[in-house]
Amino acid sequence: MGSALAAAFVEAGYPTTIWNRTPGKADELVARGAVLVPFVADALRASSLIVVCLSDAASVEDVLGPHRDELDSRTLVNLTSGTSDEARGISKWAGDYVDGAIMAIPEVIGRPEAFLLFSGSAEAYARHRESLGRLGTTTFFGEDVGLASLYDVALLGVMWGTLNSFLHGAALLGAAGVDAAEFAPFANQWVSSVTGFVNAYADQIDRGVYPAEDASLETHLATMKYLVRESSAAEVNTEWPARIQAMTERAIRAGHAGASYASLIEVFRSRA
Amino acid sequence: MGSALAAAFVEAGYPTTIWNRTPGKADELVARGAVLVPFVADALRASSLIVVCLSDAASVEDVLGPHRDELDSRTLVNLTSGTSDEARGISKWAGDYVDGAIMAIPEVIGRPEAFLLFSGSAEAYARHRESLGRLGTTTFFGEDVGLASLYDVALLGVMWGTLNSFLHGAALLGAAGVDAAEFAPFANQWVSSVTGFVNAYADQIDRGVYPAEDASLETHLATMKYLVRESSAAEVNTEWPARIQAMTERAIRAGHAGASYASLIEVFRSRA
Repeated sequence: MGSALAAAFVEAGYPTTIWNRTPGKADELVARGAVLVPFVADALRASSLIVVCLSDAASVEDVLGPHRDELDSRTLVNLTSGTSDEARGISKWAGDYVDGAIMAIPEVIGRPEAFLLFSGSAEAYARHRESLGRLGTTTFFGEDVGLASLYDVALLGVMWGTLNSFLHGAALLGAAGVDAAEFAPFANQWVSSVTGFVNAYADQIDRGVYPAEDASLETHLATMKYLVRESSAAEVNTEWPARIQAMTERAIRAGHAGASYASLIEVFRSRA
Repeated sequence: MGSALAAAFVEAGYPTTIWNRTPGKADELVARGAVLVPFVADALRASSLIVVCLSDAASVEDVLGPHRDELDSRTLVNLTSGTSDEARGISKWAGDYVDGAIMAIPEVIGRPEAFLLFSGSAEAYARHRESLGRLGTTTFFGEDVGLASLYDVALLGVMWGTLNSFLHGAALLGAAGVDAAEFAPFANQWVSSVTGFVNAYADQIDRGVYPAEDASLETHLATMKYLVRESSAAEVNTEWPARIQAMTERAIRAGHAGASYASLIEVFRSRA
């Protein structure tokens, strides 16, 4: 990922100084015009914008911690994966700090379909917004430095939830002889419809009222039971639909039988 | 839902005979031109296409079972929610039978955004395809009469999985002061990107190979742990992300650490 980020800056014509623990990886970037330096401190001194992407927050501390004085007059943009707490920790010693998360694979960095999320110093972000925009489509969530990490995992969660249900459906239909590629276009079309529910439910959540304008939790529960029964009959995984059913039953026990699906937010807000 | 279906036929100019357990509900349809009859048998004798939408499969048996002789020369399209086994059961006595599922709320019946899924007698479906098309966008999955029900619950599962992860993310970000309406557009945009993964993974599933062209399960697992940690720190629900993590760990134990997310299909295919 580090190479992809540096390559995007090089492609955009920015003077780019690079450092890596294993310098051999940089040959191609050097051939394209990047300047490879042997020590971290050299790289830090070369630019007003420092972009790092390491394996984890501990590596960031290991690599940059000894050189924190160099960061005082510079902006550090940290694209290393981590938690909001880790971002808060780094922001305490890293001065002009912007935390970031990358929602993309290295191959698409530099293209609009690469989503990059940022939070932290609004002033530093504004100053380097154009440069960072060379990496993909960027969003700044504000001065709460933990927000980029939180949005990152919340969005990945949406992906995992969608994919798991797709895989569960593919397993169920697969047991009836349907190829996953036959199911995929229907799943994708239906997911597009689901975005309409997301908007409607987001509004209900923020207002704190859950009128069942489409279907009530009780209606959902009846069909959830069908999904569990079908899964059991087909001898595929039942724990996924059973978990969905169990959480809905909990919301119903809390008094939301006649409410919309958005009322499940109260289950998700409580520890369990 | 029954009223909405009848209304779509009336609107399209089809002679429409209706029956309901509580006839008072039909006043508006009668005003628009539908013929209300007092007995089920009268309704069955009135048309070559019989469309029913009742509360469950037992009700279909109760209402139509005593009149099965009337169905011999007619097509029964059953849009009642139920399982594939129930559809197979009804198809045994209902003659020229098409089972169906409605992926829509009553308000959109008759419009293209109402998706109707069918399976069963191909000959009967072909004969009534134009009429059924008045109800919304229709798809026929073939002679396996259980497929409409299976697709129905598999697709609803995709909705529940997506919505649950959205609600979980909304709870997590909500704890950091972010409104659900702020999160929703990002979730929806990201879900659109996920459809690309669905297509790629469907292809891998059907080929039975899971090259990690984007990210390996091990990489996913690392960020799943962040999601669980963030959820725990924010004191919101952890069972949903923990389940996602547990299923991924199971796939890794089965040897898929370096494989793509599609390899989880093997977890979903096995009973648990």
